[in-house]
Amino acid sequence: MGVINRLSSKDTDFQQDLTTLLAFESSQDEAIESAVATILREVRRSGDKAVVAYSQQFDKVQAQSMADLEVPLADCQMALASLPATQRQALEAAAARVRAYHEHQKAPSWSYTEADGTVLGQKITPMDRVGLYVPGGKAAYPSSVLMNAIPAKVAGVSEVVMVTPTPHGQRNPLVLAAAAVAGVDRVIAIGGAQAVAALAYGTESIAQVDKIVGPGNAFVASAKRRVFGTVGIDMVAGPSEILIIADGKTPADWIAMDLFSQAEHDELAQAILLCPDAAYLDAVEASIIRQLEAMPRKDIIATSLQNRGALIQVRDLDEACEIANFIAAEHLEISTENAAELVDKIRHAGAIFMGSYSSESLGDYCAGPNHVLPTSRTARFSSPLGVYDFQKRSSLIQVSQQGAQTLGLIAKELAYGEGLQSHARSAEYRLDSMEK
Amino acid sequence: MGVINRLSSKDTDFQQDLTTLLAFESSQDEAIESAVATILREVRRSGDKAVVAYSQQFDKVQAQSMADLEVPLADCQMALASLPATQRQALEAAAARVRAYHEHQKAPSWSYTEADGTVLGQKITPMDRVGLYVPGGKAAYPSSVLMNAIPAKVAGVSEVVMVTPTPHGQRNPLVLAAAAVAGVDRVIAIGGAQAVAALAYGTESIAQVDKIVGPGNAFVASAKRRVFGTVGIDMVAGPSEILIIADGKTPADWIAMDLFSQAEHDELAQAILLCPDAAYLDAVEASIIRQLEAMPRKDIIATSLQNRGALIQVRDLDEACEIANFIAAEHLEISTENAAELVDKIRHAGAIFMGSYSSESLGDYCAGPNHVLPTSRTARFSSPLGVYDFQKRSSLIQVSQQGAQTLGLIAKELAYGEGLQSHARSAEYRLDSMEK
Repeated sequence: MGVINRLSSKDTDFQQDLTTLLAFESSQDEAIESAVATILREVRRSGDKAVVAYSQQFDKVQAQSMADLEVPLADCQMALASLPATQRQALEAAAARVRAYHEHQKAPSWSYTEADGTVLGQKITPMDRVGLYVPGGKAAYPSSVLMNAIPAKVAGVSEVVMVTPTPHGQRNPLVLAAAAVAGVDRVIAIGGAQAVAALAYGTESIAQVDKIVGPGNAFVASAKRRVFGTVGIDMVAGPSEILIIADGKTPADWIAMDLFSQAEHDELAQAILLCPDAAYLDAVEASIIRQLEAMPRKDIIATSLQNRGALIQVRDLDEACEIANFIAAEHLEISTENAAELVDKIRHAGAIFMGSYSSESLGDYCAGPNHVLPTSRTARFSSPLGVYDFQKRSSLIQVSQQGAQTLGLIAKELAYGEGLQSHARSAEYRLDSMEK
Repeated sequence: MGVINRLSSKDTDFQQDLTTLLAFESSQDEAIESAVATILREVRRSGDKAVVAYSQQFDKVQAQSMADLEVPLADCQMALASLPATQRQALEAAAARVRAYHEHQKAPSWSYTEADGTVLGQKITPMDRVGLYVPGGKAAYPSSVLMNAIPAKVAGVSEVVMVTPTPHGQRNPLVLAAAAVAGVDRVIAIGGAQAVAALAYGTESIAQVDKIVGPGNAFVASAKRRVFGTVGIDMVAGPSEILIIADGKTPADWIAMDLFSQAEHDELAQAILLCPDAAYLDAVEASIIRQLEAMPRKDIIATSLQNRGALIQVRDLDEACEIANFIAAEHLEISTENAAELVDKIRHAGAIFMGSYSSESLGDYCAGPNHVLPTSRTARFSSPLGVYDFQKRSSLIQVSQQGAQTLGLIAKELAYGEGLQSHARSAEYRLDSMEK
């Protein structure tokens, strides 16, 4: 068994093998589900008191009240000021680029007036208050704070409340610094299902939010699914994925490292390369073997590549695009000379990186677009996190007296047809000619 | 006990009473959940065979194969041609207006080029295939077919597949006619959880869709929740709601009928009126009593108004807007002379009807905006169904060689900070100055 799976689109069982390779089902753990249901119920009933008790129990914090768990914004500013200059500058440069890109996503309200004076349109408004979950410990990424908080602020959300657990009271200075750079409005040192519950239902000290975003462990994911409807949530993400279409002209070492950069996230992460040139696939495989040993996260990378990775020989680049549309990958690198032509053939992908200089890692941190992207083939129907996820729309309908004459006749016909007589009468009342 | 609840915003317990009035929790029935889980599993495993068997069992159809359950598009055209002329014209006029409005929602792809040649943007594409669920029996509304199918076709979805059960083989000609008008691409006479499963997983005769929209009973709602992630779904709607802000200048009979037009949907539907003028509230209450007897659906209306309806006296119209933002109603009628001023104070509502001629019934059928709207306070974070629900976005990132020099330094700094060395190395490979 090699370091990574090898497939060819000419194999008889190719479609079946590809489907098997892509298959991923998130399982739900009954013990977690039941624990989360209890935590949600308790926080809903007892508010702050329950949140403090769970934080003492799970995070081993000393806090006696919610006030003790509030992280002053001044502490975030101090964390930022304390960073090494290069790190601080990188964080600020990344934030500026992310902000500039997301400004392009702001959608304006619109309306139009018809000949009879009737006005129709759509009013676009930001949400009032958004909760941002940031995991504690190893999985706490400052870049993730930027990617979640900045679109909300660009959308015009008045209050972005960040929650992040501090096990044994240990704060993560990089995460606090990122909160300062992103313009987070409030930081509370709570986590787990109890933090999700506090945001979703509100407590004495925490106002109910309209939406909760950000990654978390199985408890957090379960809690988010359960509070959906009371508040909005972002997608519950599956393992990260990269798909690369190569014409064989990008240095093999670059492509091997791009595959690593996805595989190093998680043993379940998926890295796949499509190329018509078998010799190039050999070169990438050789590069994988050569470079793997030097990588600090080599065990995770090796497991990911062996179980879920693949080098796939395709007939040509057109077929590569068809396969890419089937896979609908989170990250798609088109590392070819004619990337601009191929991109027109791509219908489904979370983010598309064009040309050999566009490594996924540049997009993850600082190119500008969001790194929160649809996984597990959901790019068929969903989109990168964006400003639009923090805005919502209201239809605007101002029917003129004259307009009501035309619309009323249509509406009453259809309403009587559906057996909804009050609807019909309500339309008829607006008809000048009708007996009221 | 009166025909409808009376409240005043000056009451000591007003906020608590209002919260109680609004409270609605959808309960999940264990028997339904378990039945649906079985149906999904069987259809996933046995495909068409299971769908046909369930259709025989639940819908009492004679069909022996999926081919027997296919409804030819010619049958839909024939159903349309067979309608009375006024009904057919009303349906076509409504469809034309809905189409014209939704054309305004089409969002274009965009990109911009930075000074160093780096191109960033977002590509917007339609979904490939969408499933539209239409209930059988009494709850089958042709207007609902238009409201769900037209935005999908405007978005550019290639194939809209409508499923609708035909108990004992009985087809609903109005629904088939609406499918013809809306441009539905395929109609299959199946329903329930088995239809949702067929669309979500695909079978021998039905290709997997990307998203499923449309209303349904508890089995359908449960099935949709369960397949979410495999496909996209629209919101699972709660009972319908209307909130009216009145200045007392609209005829009381009109407003009473507007309240009826919501209440007649369902005993759980909610109709609330806010007005500063107590005498006007009295007049509306008197009109309710006077008009109720003549309504064919009077029992449903009476129950809805008594349990969930309210006439609320407010201090002034500004306070009415504040309360409206808290309620975040599905339908908000601003039946005042200064509706255009008040609308600026509204942050949360599914659809806003401005002025005394804009009855909700006109919007339900033919004004143009969608009648699929967020309920149960979800207008705080969600939007009317629209073209945007059938499109998705892909980020575009084309980093120039020069751009990679700037971005690479930022990315590697942050990647090393997060302990993701392959990300850092991948960025470093694109730096001209780096040792590769």
